[in-house]
Amino acid sequence: MSTHLITELFQNKATPGSIVTVKGWVRSRRDSKAGISFLHIHDGSCFDSIQAVLPNTLANYEEELLKLSAGCSVIVTGELVESPGKGQSFEIQGQSVEVIGWVDDPETYPIAKKRHTFEYLRTVAHLRPRTNAFGAVTRVRTALANAIHRYFHERHFHWINTPILTASDCEGAGELFRVSTLDMVNLPKNETGAIDFAEDFFGQETFLTVSGQLNVESYCLAMSRVYTFGPTFRAENSNTSRHLAEFWMVEPEIAFANLHDNADLAEDFLKYLFKAVLNERIDDMTFFTDRINPDAISRMQHVVDKPFERLDYTKAIEILQACPQKFEYPVEWGIDLQSEHERYLAEKHVGAPVIIMNYPKEIKAFYMRLNDDNKTVAAMDVLAPGIGEIIGGSQREERLGVLDARMGDMDHKEALWWYRDLRRYGTVPHAGFGLGFERLLNYITGMENIRDAIPFPRTPKSAHF
Amino acid sequence: MSTHLITELFQNKATPGSIVTVKGWVRSRRDSKAGISFLHIHDGSCFDSIQAVLPNTLANYEEELLKLSAGCSVIVTGELVESPGKGQSFEIQGQSVEVIGWVDDPETYPIAKKRHTFEYLRTVAHLRPRTNAFGAVTRVRTALANAIHRYFHERHFHWINTPILTASDCEGAGELFRVSTLDMVNLPKNETGAIDFAEDFFGQETFLTVSGQLNVESYCLAMSRVYTFGPTFRAENSNTSRHLAEFWMVEPEIAFANLHDNADLAEDFLKYLFKAVLNERIDDMTFFTDRINPDAISRMQHVVDKPFERLDYTKAIEILQACPQKFEYPVEWGIDLQSEHERYLAEKHVGAPVIIMNYPKEIKAFYMRLNDDNKTVAAMDVLAPGIGEIIGGSQREERLGVLDARMGDMDHKEALWWYRDLRRYGTVPHAGFGLGFERLLNYITGMENIRDAIPFPRTPKSAHF
Repeated sequence: MSTHLITELFQNKATPGSIVTVKGWVRSRRDSKAGISFLHIHDGSCFDSIQAVLPNTLANYEEELLKLSAGCSVIVTGELVESPGKGQSFEIQGQSVEVIGWVDDPETYPIAKKRHTFEYLRTVAHLRPRTNAFGAVTRVRTALANAIHRYFHERHFHWINTPILTASDCEGAGELFRVSTLDMVNLPKNETGAIDFAEDFFGQETFLTVSGQLNVESYCLAMSRVYTFGPTFRAENSNTSRHLAEFWMVEPEIAFANLHDNADLAEDFLKYLFKAVLNERIDDMTFFTDRINPDAISRMQHVVDKPFERLDYTKAIEILQACPQKFEYPVEWGIDLQSEHERYLAEKHVGAPVIIMNYPKEIKAFYMRLNDDNKTVAAMDVLAPGIGEIIGGSQREERLGVLDARMGDMDHKEALWWYRDLRRYGTVPHAGFGLGFERLLNYITGMENIRDAIPFPRTPKSAHF
Repeated sequence: MSTHLITELFQNKATPGSIVTVKGWVRSRRDSKAGISFLHIHDGSCFDSIQAVLPNTLANYEEELLKLSAGCSVIVTGELVESPGKGQSFEIQGQSVEVIGWVDDPETYPIAKKRHTFEYLRTVAHLRPRTNAFGAVTRVRTALANAIHRYFHERHFHWINTPILTASDCEGAGELFRVSTLDMVNLPKNETGAIDFAEDFFGQETFLTVSGQLNVESYCLAMSRVYTFGPTFRAENSNTSRHLAEFWMVEPEIAFANLHDNADLAEDFLKYLFKAVLNERIDDMTFFTDRINPDAISRMQHVVDKPFERLDYTKAIEILQACPQKFEYPVEWGIDLQSEHERYLAEKHVGAPVIIMNYPKEIKAFYMRLNDDNKTVAAMDVLAPGIGEIIGGSQREERLGVLDARMGDMDHKEALWWYRDLRRYGTVPHAGFGLGFERLLNYITGMENIRDAIPFPRTPKSAHF
């Protein structure tokens, strides 16, 4: 007798005919008139539950087993047999069932077996991983995260844990969360009457990071290939299905590389990730295709199979101006592309992922490398059909003089003295990009709300659990 | 001609006699009287640099190559040949050297080749990964992190990204960082005159997490095997070599498991990690053994080879009371073990890692499972020779009635309604532990200060870079 995860049984890790034990939670119970009960047991290890066939000759059949309901925890021991029923390869001929934990009042069990809206399930985020959809999201999330680490590790990238707490808003990427231990009821003031952050924990005003990029560049210029993968924060008051106050981001950075190397990395990386998920989690992906978005698998396969198009921003503007489609936002050179433009390009014009490159310098950050035309910078966005932008990146400005001119004011330069240093000591062309982990997970699973792609979502007015 | 990382050349990924290109930073230059220069080039991919032999017949020899200094970035192309010199397997007979980035004023290059104290290097944290020690720490950190993910992934654990922002201080694990977007100069007040956190971003007072454990338990009771691996925060004003305000923690949690399963997991996990580091990064570990701590490799090997002892807390107290050593802190049943006690047990009494189990309930957290003696809880600490505690964990209280009695006051119970729910719906025995990632990295590398185990350390009055 040996204990197995259910996925191991389905993967032939135990011989049919052997006695096995599984431990998990009841998904459903059905009783036949012949005095046999069928229990579906789930342990989270794969999409499918396993069926245990329980004869009424079991000692606790009447007293306990007929009272089992969804959510009860059990340990089932029995013979593993090939299943005569369709849709499952193996089942267990139960020889004993130990009930470990009951469900208080099955009638009010918050996720008792029936359809629930995703909105409702967010109010029971501690229980929603027990549902089909959120179990599947969790497994795909793990497979995807592991594929990310594996991709980089195999290619000699170093995982750099850039700081979460930072004293600078260097990127100007939006509103920041302040982090403090000051007594808010009794704030220390300096001689000018302003709040004296010198008294605060870090001796200066401190925030949650919006990106690890600037920090990771310093490691890139020592280790050649690096990446971050960690939480990032935006205090934007955006109550949309695409915004989280706390989300995870992946940011690779490569030395001796230009924008084309960066685009190649983004394409290779995405294809690797999609292949890995299709390879490792076809059970969950089949569920998403059946229940959430019929294109979930096919559009991933499409991204894997098709070469990504490269398109200059200037060319993209021409295409949008010449196309028959009417846009809400007028198209002219210099605009930031809107979602409607991006989707037209990826879905209608190219019909595959497309990488838009070389944007007007006015709409992009100071650290992006100025092109020779003096009008554009070496920035890129990867757009995918069905979602729009999933990656944004750039070649970084490695020339100190040009960087200084783009940084502008003195305070900025002083705060980023160390970032400027990187351009003074063995500077090299380098490039990188950022990928929002939850947005990618939404794209893969077809789940539409980003709050359903992270275990405990943080959004305006909501930090529950 | 093809471009390689230096580690690939040392790992025989290119044929001797072929023309190769490497891209990296100069570590040193030496000129012979015969008109040949020797350049050591490093790209961060492994501990060793590769030597390029440059004849004075190269076009830019006089004008550029003789001016190269530590830190300059170069692209070197030449024939890969077996090295006649000792200590390196291959070198490059240079055919061209392109200088990509110079060093501004080599005299003042902050990490010009000479010995620097680790304390000094913390002031140039953006450049320290270019040094031998911090390059090695970075590579070992990556290898260790990847081994952690791989260990869990191979065993069907799910990586759960528990929230960083939390509205509760449930663990009471120390002082917290408050996270807010309120205008501190003009704080909103409610009718009682208190600060009105309903106006804050999340609608309530919010903090940085000190542990993902409580949250991850909810996933454990759906997915069976889970872990967290992410940043955690302590606003403790401790200026020691063992404390960071921001550090990374690993927290596995397993269902249908008791304290012994937990101890087995901790032992198997640590052994796996140490084997992986010895296997993947023997180059860096050799450096640490030569330069930082002569026992670095041998004590890791010791942990891998020796079974971990299990020792009851009560028995440990008896041993400490009966032993000849004098302790600063008196030993009696009920005390929390001090570092001196832990080290005695691991180093003198056992001479190997030891797992102390079943501590007095008074000194442990409310969620630890009460033993039948009603005096102790199913807690454990893993102590290792040379460092003391590296893992702390417990079986969790899965019985609602007992948990409620341990939680005490009503506010606590109300705030943790969802945590109590887990005991109402299919509760199972479960257990888990926490491992401080940087402390483990210190132990492995022999680096003594935890500020040297993370890229950009955050400590009281210091959030630079």
